[in-house]
Amino acid sequence: DSPFFLIAGPCSIESEELVMNVASTIKEITSDLEIPFIFKASFDKANRTSIHSYRGPGIDEGLRILQKVKDELDLPVITDIHLPEQAAKVAEVADVIQIPAFLCRQTDLLIAAAQTGKPLNIKKAQFMAPWDMENVLKKCIDSGNDQVMLCERGTSFGYNNLVVDMPGIIEMKKFGQPIVFDATHSVQKPGGKGDATGGNREYVEYLARAAVAIGIDGLFMEVHPDPDSALSDGPNMVPLDKLEDILVTLKTIDDTVKGNAN
Amino acid sequence: DSPFFLIAGPCSIESEELVMNVASTIKEITSDLEIPFIFKASFDKANRTSIHSYRGPGIDEGLRILQKVKDELDLPVITDIHLPEQAAKVAEVADVIQIPAFLCRQTDLLIAAAQTGKPLNIKKAQFMAPWDMENVLKKCIDSGNDQVMLCERGTSFGYNNLVVDMPGIIEMKKFGQPIVFDATHSVQKPGGKGDATGGNREYVEYLARAAVAIGIDGLFMEVHPDPDSALSDGPNMVPLDKLEDILVTLKTIDDTVKGNAN
Amino acid sequence: DSPFFLIAGPCSIESEELVMNVASTIKEITSDLEIPFIFKASFDKANRTSIHSYRGPGIDEGLRILQKVKDELDLPVITDIHLPEQAAKVAEVADVIQIPAFLCRQTDLLIAAAQTGKPLNIKKAQFMAPWDMENVLKKCIDSGNDQVMLCERGTSFGYNNLVVDMPGIIEMKKFGQPIVFDATHSVQKPGGKGDATGGNREYVEYLARAAVAIGIDGLFMEVHPDPDSALSDGPNMVPLDKLEDILVTLKTIDDTVKGNAN
Amino acid sequence: DSPFFLIAGPCSIESEELVMNVASTIKEITSDLEIPFIFKASFDKANRTSIHSYRGPGIDEGLRILQKVKDELDLPVITDIHLPEQAAKVAEVADVIQIPAFLCRQTDLLIAAAQTGKPLNIKKAQFMAPWDMENVLKKCIDSGNDQVMLCERGTSFGYNNLVVDMPGIIEMKKFGQPIVFDATHSVQKPGGKGDATGGNREYVEYLARAAVAIGIDGLFMEVHPDPDSALSDGPNMVPLDKLEDILVTLKTIDDTVKGNAN
Repeated sequence: DSPFFLIAGPCSIESEELVMNVASTIKEITSDLEIPFIFKASFDKANRTSIHSYRGPGIDEGLRILQKVKDELDLPVITDIHLPEQAAKVAEVADVIQIPAFLCRQTDLLIAAAQTGKPLNIKKAQFMAPWDMENVLKKCIDSGNDQVMLCERGTSFGYNNLVVDMPGIIEMKKFGQPIVFDATHSVQKPGGKGDATGGNREYVEYLARAAVAIGIDGLFMEVHPDPDSALSDGPNMVPLDKLEDILVTLKTIDDTVKGNAN
Repeated sequence: DSPFFLIAGPCSIESEELVMNVASTIKEITSDLEIPFIFKASFDKANRTSIHSYRGPGIDEGLRILQKVKDELDLPVITDIHLPEQAAKVAEVADVIQIPAFLCRQTDLLIAAAQTGKPLNIKKAQFMAPWDMENVLKKCIDSGNDQVMLCERGTSFGYNNLVVDMPGIIEMKKFGQPIVFDATHSVQKPGGKGDATGGNREYVEYLARAAVAIGIDGLFMEVHPDPDSALSDGPNMVPLDKLEDILVTLKTIDDTVKGNAN
Repeated sequence: DSPFFLIAGPCSIESEELVMNVASTIKEITSDLEIPFIFKASFDKANRTSIHSYRGPGIDEGLRILQKVKDELDLPVITDIHLPEQAAKVAEVADVIQIPAFLCRQTDLLIAAAQTGKPLNIKKAQFMAPWDMENVLKKCIDSGNDQVMLCERGTSFGYNNLVVDMPGIIEMKKFGQPIVFDATHSVQKPGGKGDATGGNREYVEYLARAAVAIGIDGLFMEVHPDPDSALSDGPNMVPLDKLEDILVTLKTIDDTVKGNAN
Repeated sequence: DSPFFLIAGPCSIESEELVMNVASTIKEITSDLEIPFIFKASFDKANRTSIHSYRGPGIDEGLRILQKVKDELDLPVITDIHLPEQAAKVAEVADVIQIPAFLCRQTDLLIAAAQTGKPLNIKKAQFMAPWDMENVLKKCIDSGNDQVMLCERGTSFGYNNLVVDMPGIIEMKKFGQPIVFDATHSVQKPGGKGDATGGNREYVEYLARAAVAIGIDGLFMEVHPDPDSALSDGPNMVPLDKLEDILVTLKTIDDTVKGNAN
């Protein structure tokens, strides 16, 4: 099996400077470790807990900055869409289109994304069983696109909590598509801060290790130079200066379970 | 407290004939029982489990038929929207706009719906705690619309199952808005039939009784003359010819708990 | 169907005075309302969260006080056992033997209880599905005792929380045995106070109404003259002076759903 | 950190021959891999789903066979108790006493086990939060015994299913006691076969890898030469002839995360 690839970046395109800084730093780290890297950031956080939360720079400015990441750093980029009408426009820049978990059952969004012909990364909804992602996958295949990655990001577990059911990864691998594990959003405490979603950053590294030990194709992790001042998802993001140490351990586990160790 | 009102109809606008038949029959039943009645049917089922499932007649034909219900039967109507751009158009016909559970965190959809000035019925997502609906409510109020009903329709409970946490109704009542209980979708087994959502129609009446006994403002129930041949949600819908008996019992319980019994 | 019966009392046999006071007061209330009443109190709380919590007067003193309730107030009594060796001794006094939820899978305890020939009230474990109580029931029947009541008291729902799945009552009714709903323990927040179990007394009345509206044979409710000073389960118990009002409403709902209204 | 130790054996002491066979085979495998090994088997399965299921040879014959394992194979042994009165007797043979998950809140059982002075392995109940195991631990410490291992074995997740919340391991490590992961019972489908508990053996290896990657002190795994003919827990047990391959991978992951790799 191939070594895992990394989808990483700050949650939101807070500024051009932040994006270029994070992207170039991760590029350096992953090049050394020979980990394929796709840069991720969102231009719009369309489902924040509160209407007063920061949403992002919008689609035009967001895509401009993502294009700059591609041009200047020669990195593939991924970003998420929320409405069918955004698919074609985003596909002009993004190498991979991401479908948010809450929206993974919206048929028109899936069709529009699939019809761009771009690879998709579809997050499994918090309310869905792993085996039910097969129907989501089929909606894309029936729309002519089988380049679909499925992404585990935690399942509803009582109120204001998620749990990662690791065998869900095994179940989704049976569909024959690449499986991604989102270690950042899996540690959310939805609504856990009253008017914002909380989280437990300390768990990210451990869950990433567990998922890599089970055998995943890709790892999704949000990083930020200063998570506590991030404009969204701060409680779950990993500090940029800790990324390298985490990846070194993950790479060794990945090599072990995939028989790539030398 | 006022007696409960009923939001009912077939899940989907399968045909003009079906809609007029169901609407007029329920009107007759509820008039006799003095239960205020809002007719409900969807013009598009935008998140079916499978891409091959029936979706509905579409927005134009759907609104035409709903307008006919209003004109010929003098009934208020409610229908659901899935994209912000549908809000204004639907508001020209619908007396109440409904927000689907999966979409209740999508800020732009809520704002667009709220800005129509129409009353809203927002379903609580399967992945949300009752107290977290306050943020959803605030998004509408901050958009200038406080005519918001919140609707319980079950919470994720393990895989392929929902549970109704009855105290969630009590928690949501604390926001001071009308609370609706959706007895039909609360008995879904999401994904439980492989490529379709299953359900347990037998539970509908019991859950409705339980919710009315706790004290709700409105009851949502999908009915169909022949549920087993319905084009969507058949496993959960109540046969039209059983509706009257169910409502008679519910009305007595409602009068008892609200002190309206004579 | 018969009207519901009530199993009630303070959680623990805190003192002879408390027991006689509570038992006689409830007797008076239930006589007026024609609700059959079984007095309940525990002689030992064998699974308290903390080792430092109050456990009770022990089996000998506990049974002496329960005998006094029988002798002086002419009431049937129910109490719970935790070890097989307690069954025969308790059966000399108790009219019904109760099996705690955590222990409802312990085969020897069930057999010992069943072999006393006394009616049993078996609480459904927080970790069990309603349909799996059939195996628990069979263990008793195969031990020669089919006088078995099954009792719903909430199911694990994430951490430190329970949920009452009302359709579970419908499922258990299918076994043909009397079904009891425990409105007190269903509102527990297990471990929710750190070194004690919390709860939400405000929900008790509402859940009781919901269960009665569905149709139960018996209602279990712990009451105390001053719940906030109770030595166990204080957060969940109903104040004794509110019991009558609650029962009046429940009785009307029960008559309605069982067709006993006049 | 020390390398992980292994607690393994067949679920039940089916026969002396089986026990000696399994114990000696695992001893050989673990010696080669330098994995400390404690032999586990139960003399009584006291909470089987059905009363007609096999329970075991009983305490006297069971302890005789476990003593033989100690004498002839020079292995430490662990077995579980269900009643306080069994503690002292079992302590004469067992090197470690195990408390079953369903019983981990039973105060008298914990005290009796703690007072033997033997190390304990306490399974976290399916209905408990990881942080609530601190109260269980305290019951032992207050009884004079702080040699307590805590064991994760899955948490209730809807009906007839368990989920392993991997961060629960991190939470329990904070108590400063050794943490064991039970990979066998974590894959149970409680009650999933109607009158027996089902399971998914295929997941055992993956969950073991995930837990080792997070960092555990001990791994609990039931093995059997022919799981499909085992008298209990067959669906979850690992075939004996697959054990070595599994342990080789786990050992490498363990060395990686504990910095013991050379």
